[in-house]
Amino acid sequence: MAHGCSPHVATILAANCATAERDGSTSHGLFRMRHYVSTLRSGWVDGRAEPVIADAAPGFVRADAKNGFAQIALAEAAPLLVQKARTNGIAVLAIRQSHHLGALYLDVEPFALQGLVALTVVNSIAVVAPHAGSRAVYGTNPIAFAAPTADGAPLVFDQATSTAALGDVRVAQQAGHDLPYGAGLDRAGQPTNDPAAILDGGALLPFGGYKGAAISLMVEILCAALVGANFSFEVDSSAYPGAKTGCTGQTIIVIDPAAGSDGLAPLPARVSTLVAALQDAGQTYIPGGRRLIARSQPSAPIDPAVWTELRSLLPA
Amino acid sequence: MAHGCSPHVATILAANCATAERDGSTSHGLFRMRHYVSTLRSGWVDGRAEPVIADAAPGFVRADAKNGFAQIALAEAAPLLVQKARTNGIAVLAIRQSHHLGALYLDVEPFALQGLVALTVVNSIAVVAPHAGSRAVYGTNPIAFAAPTADGAPLVFDQATSTAALGDVRVAQQAGHDLPYGAGLDRAGQPTNDPAAILDGGALLPFGGYKGAAISLMVEILCAALVGANFSFEVDSSAYPGAKTGCTGQTIIVIDPAAGSDGLAPLPARVSTLVAALQDAGQTYIPGGRRLIARSQPSAPIDPAVWTELRSLLPA
Repeated sequence: MAHGCSPHVATILAANCATAERDGSTSHGLFRMRHYVSTLRSGWVDGRAEPVIADAAPGFVRADAKNGFAQIALAEAAPLLVQKARTNGIAVLAIRQSHHLGALYLDVEPFALQGLVALTVVNSIAVVAPHAGSRAVYGTNPIAFAAPTADGAPLVFDQATSTAALGDVRVAQQAGHDLPYGAGLDRAGQPTNDPAAILDGGALLPFGGYKGAAISLMVEILCAALVGANFSFEVDSSAYPGAKTGCTGQTIIVIDPAAGSDGLAPLPARVSTLVAALQDAGQTYIPGGRRLIARSQPSAPIDPAVWTELRSLLPA
Repeated sequence: MAHGCSPHVATILAANCATAERDGSTSHGLFRMRHYVSTLRSGWVDGRAEPVIADAAPGFVRADAKNGFAQIALAEAAPLLVQKARTNGIAVLAIRQSHHLGALYLDVEPFALQGLVALTVVNSIAVVAPHAGSRAVYGTNPIAFAAPTADGAPLVFDQATSTAALGDVRVAQQAGHDLPYGAGLDRAGQPTNDPAAILDGGALLPFGGYKGAAISLMVEILCAALVGANFSFEVDSSAYPGAKTGCTGQTIIVIDPAAGSDGLAPLPARVSTLVAALQDAGQTYIPGGRRLIARSQPSAPIDPAVWTELRSLLPA
């Protein structure tokens, strides 16, 4: 709020950061506050924006975040989106003119807790080169997916379509670590593992070669082309030094599995059966598991350096 | 028809194979006829099945393929699916009890030709090990996506979530070629590139490590858990020697972008803008390009060995 957020926006973003921190997703936790503040102070994002929600079709909600954060538009549109998904079996929310610095799994998990299946994609700023290209076009374009289970927390995954999330690159740079082999390109288009070279005019690469690149392409289309939002490569915040976000789009598809199983085993039980089969085949780590373990702890230790920095962001 | 298909089913499958062959997608072209015939003769699939289509919700079509091929259910359900997508902005078709041996891009391209965005996923038989697992659980679980462009054919991609498609493994085995490094595991769970070892009790691996595995997990949930279909690992055709398919599920999500762009640039023009940016960044190959080139030729040469085999499948 000291840096330009309305109380409503600050409440949503603070809860988002704190939840990610509690869940051990530190790259999207309190560490991100510096980027929120930097972006707000640059004037690039509007911390007081009030999103405009449009009931575009019986299964289609359109939101204009009005140059604010995407989570605010999602929070406002979610009840209508859920109502449409329950009525129609499936519904989509397409957000334009939005900024996203948060952990994406937090955008889908609440739907799964209501028994729904949710998939979301978001584009951002051009930091990922296309397959066999030499210059960044895509954002890290993460995908998050959540489905209810019969026996506990929803199954949730959240992953960048790049070799690493931008948050991870920043964490590696700050910690002085290299990224894994094949992570990105330097400014000259040559392969590099150096986070600084990637961030300084270079590019990340899509995960999984041309197949990951195609997924990233789909993310751009679903986020930006679908709803008149910017592509990642169209974002230009150069007039706003300190800006860390793209003003792009986010799309969320929600499915009510009730329409699918007429008398057959319901989806949550089936998801649990699948997870058991994965474990039986030797997969010891199920996506989201670290977050659930962290969440079950009575407290979450905060990195002293992050805490010190957090306090330094407070107004004098 | 000589091997047990009704004229209706034979017409759809023959057009599917011939179109893939014409498009240069030879692994899903005439080469596949032997697997159709083998599966039909085994009694595992019903070539005369008549799918049952249910209008499950305003945006949800459910189909029971009745142990027939998925394309038959899709052909029957497509008009209702399109009508629902145009009315609601988004609609989903979930097919259960279905077999799929065809090229998946052919299932989504027709929607894009009508100005719609389409995403489909299909699961099959357990030939892909989960990440860090030692035994197959997933199918090759392909994803196909299509979106209209402003200046020509739709943008379409079609890719397995495994390192290679099963068709490619079979083609490599027949040709005596190894697969790329890291493609799969042998029967003992050890890494191998040998297609024979992968097919003989071994497993493929997901593309892109744990991230591709998570996509494959999502495919299983969307195809099978959503609609009471079998997971890939639940398929057991051992009593039907010669069966080459899974009896599983397929899900297709169709979005009408008209609801998204209220007065802003429509999606087809935006997709073309994105493709131009990829080319400008040095990406010389755009997904689907080889198919479009092959399709533009006046004729498609058929491999003499495939032709000979095709003729051998005719009844004496």
